[in-house]
Amino acid sequence: MPAEGEEMRTSEDAGAMPHLAAQLAADVLERLRRQAPRVHCITNAVAQNFTANVLLAAGAVPSMTIAPEEIGRFVASANALLVNLGTFDHERRDAIAIAIEAANKDQVPWVLDPVLIDRAPLRAEFARELVARGPKVVRLNRAEFSVLSGADAKPETLTRYARDRKLVAALSGETDFIADGARLAVIANGHPLMARVTAMGCAGSALTAACLAVESDPWNAGVAALLIFAIAGELAGANAAGPGSFAVAIIDALHRLDAASLIARARVS
Amino acid sequence: MPAEGEEMRTSEDAGAMPHLAAQLAADVLERLRRQAPRVHCITNAVAQNFTANVLLAAGAVPSMTIAPEEIGRFVASANALLVNLGTFDHERRDAIAIAIEAANKDQVPWVLDPVLIDRAPLRAEFARELVARGPKVVRLNRAEFSVLSGADAKPETLTRYARDRKLVAALSGETDFIADGARLAVIANGHPLMARVTAMGCAGSALTAACLAVESDPWNAGVAALLIFAIAGELAGANAAGPGSFAVAIIDALHRLDAASLIARARVS
Amino acid sequence: MPAEGEEMRTSEDAGAMPHLAAQLAADVLERLRRQAPRVHCITNAVAQNFTANVLLAAGAVPSMTIAPEEIGRFVASANALLVNLGTFDHERRDAIAIAIEAANKDQVPWVLDPVLIDRAPLRAEFARELVARGPKVVRLNRAEFSVLSGADAKPETLTRYARDRKLVAALSGETDFIADGARLAVIANGHPLMARVTAMGCAGSALTAACLAVESDPWNAGVAALLIFAIAGELAGANAAGPGSFAVAIIDALHRLDAASLIARARVS
Repeated sequence: MPAEGEEMRTSEDAGAMPHLAAQLAADVLERLRRQAPRVHCITNAVAQNFTANVLLAAGAVPSMTIAPEEIGRFVASANALLVNLGTFDHERRDAIAIAIEAANKDQVPWVLDPVLIDRAPLRAEFARELVARGPKVVRLNRAEFSVLSGADAKPETLTRYARDRKLVAALSGETDFIADGARLAVIANGHPLMARVTAMGCAGSALTAACLAVESDPWNAGVAALLIFAIAGELAGANAAGPGSFAVAIIDALHRLDAASLIARARVS
Repeated sequence: MPAEGEEMRTSEDAGAMPHLAAQLAADVLERLRRQAPRVHCITNAVAQNFTANVLLAAGAVPSMTIAPEEIGRFVASANALLVNLGTFDHERRDAIAIAIEAANKDQVPWVLDPVLIDRAPLRAEFARELVARGPKVVRLNRAEFSVLSGADAKPETLTRYARDRKLVAALSGETDFIADGARLAVIANGHPLMARVTAMGCAGSALTAACLAVESDPWNAGVAALLIFAIAGELAGANAAGPGSFAVAIIDALHRLDAASLIARARVS
Repeated sequence: MPAEGEEMRTSEDAGAMPHLAAQLAADVLERLRRQAPRVHCITNAVAQNFTANVLLAAGAVPSMTIAPEEIGRFVASANALLVNLGTFDHERRDAIAIAIEAANKDQVPWVLDPVLIDRAPLRAEFARELVARGPKVVRLNRAEFSVLSGADAKPETLTRYARDRKLVAALSGETDFIADGARLAVIANGHPLMARVTAMGCAGSALTAACLAVESDPWNAGVAALLIFAIAGELAGANAAGPGSFAVAIIDALHRLDAASLIARARVS
C-alpha cells in the first residue's frame, strides 16, 4: 500500500466481480476456521512471528522449520506451502529446493513471494527459476513484478505474465490486482499503515497460501486472501494510533472478521 | 489450551494442593523479581522475541546466543537453561549439545520443550536422547507427550513417565498437569486465546526455566510457572479483543501480577 | 535505562546544549520522513522485527539480509549500516566483514552495537577489532563500555575514548551520554519500561544509524537519535499498562512524534 501514484486500472475485457468477491472471501474464511489447514512457511526471520500470528488468527496452523532432514515431511503433510525469499541464505535455498520437490510430488499448492528482488539480482535470478517450478500464485509488489517480468506493472502485463507462466499473479499496492490470464480482480480496500509495518506483505503471502489450502481455484484463493487482509487492515486502521497498535489490531481484526464486514466493505471490480 | 475434549482428571492417590499453590507461585514470582535470574534460551526464531519479553516481564534476564564458541560460557553463568526443539537445524543441535554439557557440569537446571515431535520423527528421537541427559522438567502438550512416552496422556501415564525418568512432566492444555512421580497438580486456569498466539507454549517453557532458577524443587517450579502463566492469561483475556491484543496484554499482566490475583484466581487441585 | 545508581554527571568543560538539541532532533526527524533513507541492519534474531518496525515508524526503510552474496550490494546502496553483535554466529561475522568493507569503500556511515560483550570475551575482542574499522558511532550501555574501553563509565572516560578512537560514544542508561571528544550531551529523558522490553537498545542503535543517514555530523546524529527515542519512550510510558503495551506504544509514538513534543519535553544539558 505505498502512497505511490497508482496507474493501474481494471480493463473492460478482464473479468470483473463486485459483491461476489466478498461472498467468496467469507466462504474461504469459514473454511479456514473449520478445516484449520496446515501451512508450511519458509520465510525470513523478520517475518516469522508476525506471519505465524496472522495465520493463527485466520484459522490456519503454521509450521516453519527449514531443517533439510525434516522439511520434506512437514511439507508433504501440509495443505499449502509458502516460499518467501526474504532471507536469502544457503540454508533457506536448500530448504526451498527440498520443499518444492515435496510439494510438487504430493500436489501441495505453493505461493512464491520474491521479496526485494528489485534490490538483489541473485534473488531475481533464483525467483525466475522458482517460477518455472510451478507456484500456483506469485504475490509481489510493483517493483518486484517489473524485475520478475521485465515489464512495467499494468493490468495487461500482469495478465500476460500470468497467462504465459500459467499462474496467478497477485500484485499488492495501494490497489491490489489479481490476474490469472483470463480473469482480473481489482481490490481498492486496505489502509496506508499496512505499508508502515514490517512483514505485512510477507504475511499477506502466507494468508494466500492458507486460502489456497482450502480453495482449489488459485485465482479465487488469491482474491479471497488479499480481500480478507485488506479489509482486516481497514478495520484495524479505524482504531489504531500508529503502526504499533495497527500491527496488533490487524491480528485481532482477522480473528473477528465476519461475512457482514466483508460484504459491507468490499470494493472489488 | 486447545479446545479439545479434556479427558484427564486428577486421581485421588496423587498429591493435591488447593490454595498453597497460589502462595507458592506468589513466592516464586517475588523471588524472580528480586533475584532477576539469568535464563539462557535455545529456542526457535519464531519464539525468540516473545519469549524474551515474557521473561523480562516476569523479572528474569534472558540470553539467547547459540554460537558454539560462547554458548558454554553463557550457560555456565546462567541460573537456568531452556532447550526448545522448535528450530531443528544443525547449528541449534550443536548448541544444545554444548549447552547441556555445560549445564550438567555446573548444576544449572534445564527444561526440555520437545516442540512438534508429533510431526517430526527425528525430533522425537533426539528428544528421547535429551531426556536421558537429565532435564529437571519436560514441558509439552498431549500429542508431544504421547510420542515421547509411547502412551496416551493420562494422569497415570504422566506420573509413571515422570517417576521412571526422574523428572517433572508438565503437560499444557485446556487443563495443565504437573507430575513428578509422587505428586500431581492440576491447574484449571488459563484462557482459550493462549492457543491462538504463536510461541505461547515456548514462552511457558521459558518461564518454567526461570522459576527453576529460583526454586530448587522442580515440581514446585513447574506448578508455579504454569499457574503464573495461566492466571496472567486469564487477566489478559479479560480485556483482549483478539489474539493480537491478547499477546500484548499477557506481557502486561505478567509484569503487574501480584499475590492477591494469584490467590483469588488459582484453581488448582 | 536500568534502575542502577547513576554516577555520571555532565562536566563543565564538555559542550552543553539546552533547547537546541530538541530543534536538532526535530530537524533530523523531518529529514528521516522526507528522505526515507535505507538502513541496512545486521542484527540479532530477537531484535529484527522490533528494529524494523522502529525504523519504519521513524520514516526509514530497513533491510536485513546477511547472505554473503548479496549483503555487499545491499550495503553499498544503503544510506547507513548497523552492526549489532547480538547474534554472534559465523554467518553474521562473515556478513559483518563484507558489510563493513562495502560501507567503508562507499562512504556509508555505520554504527556499532557491541551487545553483551560484558558476558562474552570473544565478542569483546571482535568488537575491539571492529572499532578499528571506523564506525561513526558506538552505541552501548555502561557494562559494555567498561569492557570495551577498560575504564569505568564516566563523562571523562567516555570523552577520552571518543577522542582517542575518533568516533562518537553514545552511552544509554537511565541518563544517556553522547561524546565525541570535544562535545558531551546528557539526556535525562526516557522511561523505566525501556529496560523491560527486549531489543530496545538494539532498536536505539538502528535509529542512530538512520539519523546518521540524514545528518553528516555523527555527534548530532547520536544526540538526535537518543533524544527522539527517549521522548518517544516517555510518551509511550504515559499510557502503557506494562512492557507489552509499552513496546506497541513506542512504535506509535515514534510515528506521531512532532517538533512540539520534542521541544516541550527535551531535558538535555
